[in-house]
Amino acid sequence: MKQLVAVMGRGLVAPNTALVTADDLGLTRGDGYYDAVRVVVSDGQARIDHLDRHLQRFARSSAALDLPVFDEAGWRALIAEAVAAWDVPGEAVLKLVRTRGSENSPNGPTELLTITPAADATKARQGVRAITLSRGTASDAFADTPWLLGGLKTLSHAVNSAARREAVRRGADDAIFVTTDGFLLEAPTAGVIIAADDQLWTTPTSGTGVLPSITVEVVMDAARTQGVGAHEALFRPADLPDTDGLWIASSIRGVMPVRELDGVELPFSEELTRHLARTAGF
Amino acid sequence: MKQLVAVMGRGLVAPNTALVTADDLGLTRGDGYYDAVRVVVSDGQARIDHLDRHLQRFARSSAALDLPVFDEAGWRALIAEAVAAWDVPGEAVLKLVRTRGSENSPNGPTELLTITPAADATKARQGVRAITLSRGTASDAFADTPWLLGGLKTLSHAVNSAARREAVRRGADDAIFVTTDGFLLEAPTAGVIIAADDQLWTTPTSGTGVLPSITVEVVMDAARTQGVGAHEALFRPADLPDTDGLWIASSIRGVMPVRELDGVELPFSEELTRHLARTAGF
Repeated sequence: MKQLVAVMGRGLVAPNTALVTADDLGLTRGDGYYDAVRVVVSDGQARIDHLDRHLQRFARSSAALDLPVFDEAGWRALIAEAVAAWDVPGEAVLKLVRTRGSENSPNGPTELLTITPAADATKARQGVRAITLSRGTASDAFADTPWLLGGLKTLSHAVNSAARREAVRRGADDAIFVTTDGFLLEAPTAGVIIAADDQLWTTPTSGTGVLPSITVEVVMDAARTQGVGAHEALFRPADLPDTDGLWIASSIRGVMPVRELDGVELPFSEELTRHLARTAGF
Repeated sequence: MKQLVAVMGRGLVAPNTALVTADDLGLTRGDGYYDAVRVVVSDGQARIDHLDRHLQRFARSSAALDLPVFDEAGWRALIAEAVAAWDVPGEAVLKLVRTRGSENSPNGPTELLTITPAADATKARQGVRAITLSRGTASDAFADTPWLLGGLKTLSHAVNSAARREAVRRGADDAIFVTTDGFLLEAPTAGVIIAADDQLWTTPTSGTGVLPSITVEVVMDAARTQGVGAHEALFRPADLPDTDGLWIASSIRGVMPVRELDGVELPFSEELTRHLARTAGF
């Protein structure tokens, strides 16, 4: 598979180049953060989705992890150089990675990016079957506990990967985390949108540990601009049959209607799904 | 600082060699595990502490993360080669790291080790001041939730690092995590031992997410051999003034008496501390 790798201060490097030392804290401690941005190439032109918002989130992750402020101009230049060299038609994932760097020879953060073709999300955008999995935390567990790193896109992502493996093992497409007090949180790599009472809803990021999803933000902002109410609220799975539908939203995979949750068929509207996807740029 | 790096299938490599690609899942997802073993060099002889127990834990981590079974003979040979080349007198950390490997060019796990001098733990072995920090989870949060990866030494370690930064920020030496229902769990990189009623106690690993600590296991096994009761139980910080003391125990830093927790002075016995440390091989 074609991929493209670039390193801050060094530019493009051959894919499969070894870049990170054995004592890099990003490797040994998951101590760092990332962001994932969609790049679309059509008619030979590359488009980067919502880069400003992603870089704002990148800055928030940096501050929350006590890493040195990142060089935004340098990152924008590196991204531009990489995207200019990317010519694979279709959708790709631009991943930005920043770690605390070497433990034994401290020399500042490790900073690199990759571009790889996105997995085909056509089917997921038509509908996914999901299961709920406990996140092990109550809905207020992340209030006043910044050391728990709630709502950050850290490199310590193994639980999300394990939850997706568990979903697949149970024959589902994806998981949606729930709190120990029974409320929906988010999918391992996607935020949540619910339509109900002619308004849009998402799960609260404050106190819950939910990551602020760029795609959800874009959809909610567009709704408000169109005069549609867009709010945060806690929902239980049992509330969903009385809504107009549940979607999970990812910068890469787009807006995916959840057609079935824990074996229960959920309300579904093709029209609403099309509208939300278009709003998000998919 | 002197350090030593070795890679499975390749042997010793120069320190600071770049070894890991930008798309290694250990780097981008914290998707892998590690173990840390003390090596002591004295009179030109290197001793590895409790390697069998550490490799058993390594195997458990592997299985829980659905990684391919690790080549124990190969790892033992790599460890022997590295330790034979290590000649720095005093205590060192042998760190074993195993990741899910490259995401885009899957070629099996990334497997490497490092040996570095241990930080001086002399002062910590005389006593630490700790604060409690919420772990965000109740004491039963990890029962029947294997996807939460409780009790595993995964590379997704950022919360532990953040908790130690928070402790230092508050003027303490270390943190001890507590559950949302108020029970002691473990320190970010150390298990817990409590002496009370002429017996030894540690925090339960089942259901709590507490990592089975090799040092705690060694101490508890030795106690049982000597006819001293050694059990698991949940303790609240408020229980501690009525005990004979609290220690945190690490394979590298040894058995450290907690002299003060959240500003409250705790019972302390120099004799018990010496006994526990000796039992653990420190």
